Amino acid sequence: MPATISDVPTPSFLVDFDKVKKNAQKMIDTCERLGVQLRPHMKTHKTVELGTLMTNGTKRTIEVSTLEEAEFYARNGFDDILYAHPLIAARIERCKSLAYKLKAFHVMIESFHGLIALLSCPLKNGKKWSIYLEIDDGSGRSGVPWESDDVIKLAKEASESPYIDFQGLYLFNGRTYEAKGTRGIENANKEGTDLLQTLHKRFTDNNIDCRTLAIGNTPSCSRPHESMNVLTEFHPGNYIFYDMQQATIGSCSSDDIACRLTTRIIGHKPSHNIFLIDCGFLALSYDGMAEHPDEFSTFLDHPDLKVIGFSQEIGKVTTKSGDKLNYDKYPIGSQLFIFPWHSCATACQHTVFYVHSGNNITDMWTPAKGW
Amino acid sequence: MPATISDVPTPSFLVDFDKVKKNAQKMIDTCERLGVQLRPHMKTHKTVELGTLMTNGTKRTIEVSTLEEAEFYARNGFDDILYAHPLIAARIERCKSLAYKLKAFHVMIESFHGLIALLSCPLKNGKKWSIYLEIDDGSGRSGVPWESDDVIKLAKEASESPYIDFQGLYLFNGRTYEAKGTRGIENANKEGTDLLQTLHKRFTDNNIDCRTLAIGNTPSCSRPHESMNVLTEFHPGNYIFYDMQQATIGSCSSDDIACRLTTRIIGHKPSHNIFLIDCGFLALSYDGMAEHPDEFSTFLDHPDLKVIGFSQEIGKVTTKSGDKLNYDKYPIGSQLFIFPWHSCATACQHTVFYVHSGNNITDMWTPAKGW
Repeated sequence: MPATISDVPTPSFLVDFDKVKKNAQKMIDTCERLGVQLRPHMKTHKTVELGTLMTNGTKRTIEVSTLEEAEFYARNGFDDILYAHPLIAARIERCKSLAYKLKAFHVMIESFHGLIALLSCPLKNGKKWSIYLEIDDGSGRSGVPWESDDVIKLAKEASESPYIDFQGLYLFNGRTYEAKGTRGIENANKEGTDLLQTLHKRFTDNNIDCRTLAIGNTPSCSRPHESMNVLTEFHPGNYIFYDMQQATIGSCSSDDIACRLTTRIIGHKPSHNIFLIDCGFLALSYDGMAEHPDEFSTFLDHPDLKVIGFSQEIGKVTTKSGDKLNYDKYPIGSQLFIFPWHSCATACQHTVFYVHSGNNITDMWTPAKGW
Repeated sequence: MPATISDVPTPSFLVDFDKVKKNAQKMIDTCERLGVQLRPHMKTHKTVELGTLMTNGTKRTIEVSTLEEAEFYARNGFDDILYAHPLIAARIERCKSLAYKLKAFHVMIESFHGLIALLSCPLKNGKKWSIYLEIDDGSGRSGVPWESDDVIKLAKEASESPYIDFQGLYLFNGRTYEAKGTRGIENANKEGTDLLQTLHKRFTDNNIDCRTLAIGNTPSCSRPHESMNVLTEFHPGNYIFYDMQQATIGSCSSDDIACRLTTRIIGHKPSHNIFLIDCGFLALSYDGMAEHPDEFSTFLDHPDLKVIGFSQEIGKVTTKSGDKLNYDKYPIGSQLFIFPWHSCATACQHTVFYVHSGNNITDMWTPAKGW
């Protein structure tokens, strides 16, 4: 294991342990205060260590985005796992194994295809399929359109089946990603909460039992509106690392960002006013580059730098201002640190995370990979 | 192992064995005809199996883009490996191990920093550092500007050092990526070859021994100009898979593309004229999306479809024409195949490749990962 941050090979993904601990605790406190169950999403990091931290050591009540993740966490002693991806028939066999293995394994549906797949393959030995119904608030993500008749039909059919344990509703609440600042997110949260309550009332009117009202995403849960105490579950994920996208939205301050990429300068190109770094698209990912060219690669202590182009293993860096680079300030071989635009996208590119406290490397974590 | 393509989990990366075999053989034949040494790049796939195929079973004379790849191939019996990335001092120790372990291990430099790093750390027991000098033809990639005085200074200092075995020159020849069609690429190749020959003459005039004149990239080596028989080495990589980018440039026909992503439809969104697939940015990569929205996700047998948006695990598909989707034609659960814009970027997202001959899965390959 490298001794300090300066000894880590480049490019590498660094996790600030003191900051992830603080981010994890803050979300636990928020959920306790509001009286909602925290079901943190693992897709951002896919590690046992952060899953343990985010669940306050219980290893219970998590959410994942792939079956590979579900199987990885199940193997590592986690229970009460929600597989939060529209279910299709082709995945039933792997889901069945998880349902039998775990005390609680939940799937998410958003169509009759998913429901029929489950009903065609009932579980045995008193086990039931436990399902969440995903709602689309109109933004066109996965989920049943919230005002449609299908929401009621699907929920009714599910809740009345002897083979299914109907949990309730999940909303991603995409409007928080359009919001700006704490107040904007809080307002978007109020709207999302109202929407879920309206739907809950329709369920009650139709005699549908719905125990769970869950809301997702990092802005929602980082800047909750007090009215969200009527909800039962929070499903945030990215808050463990945060990133430039979340700082721009207002979910966090840039000081809360708990991950960064480290890279080294490998060449000078005065003819093009750039220098080269050993961080290509493979290490950082393209996420945010097209839409947020000035923020998607924010350099620690060098606010005027940005990446303007990539090959697989090399990045081209210039100034945001258009000023001439002072190459004496950036000798070949020197180490730099980049805050990613989207930490989920960047973390997923790495097979090991270097964990540090201050400058010292304290651990190396191995995330799950694949599908 | 899944029996057929229909049984493969989604999303997955598929490799058409008959096509990679044909692509590998064609490049071997091209190099034999022109009398140049083929040094295929492994960065596209990073597998033992394709490395073996591309070297005609010899497992000799390859090129890699990371030290992790170099170590992976060295562990798996490969020799004569060029680590084709601008060398910096921080990597010397790992390079030293490889230099001692292998019969031939070459590094690439493009600056005095790299040269000084090598000279500060000479090898023992009669071993010398074997180096290639990378040339920039003016496009601003890595490499010493080809008309500069530094090219001569670096080559002279390297070739006169008793600790260094100076191989010669490598040019990426970026202008082939700006070319269009066979004729355009051939012309760009002639220009690149002339440039290397001009530089070679400067070397001769300065009494610098230069045995190797190497040219890289897939368009160059797929559509070579006959004048390239004066060169000594070809360094292509992507030709083993090809992709939509190479087909657009004219390096191959779309029928030569030997890899594809398989995905399934997981939801319908008539309100937005889209359907959802279980292929997010993590499985396909963003490479090409911003610049080539209509080509970066070309669907086999469905030329009017394209991906217009991504989350980590979900893609949104609509029509290129703007026509209404016929949802009866695309039931939830059905399997689709996508040719990626850039096969290197897509392959690198996967921890396993499913190999097929016709519809039958014949093998599963595990690529190297990380840095």
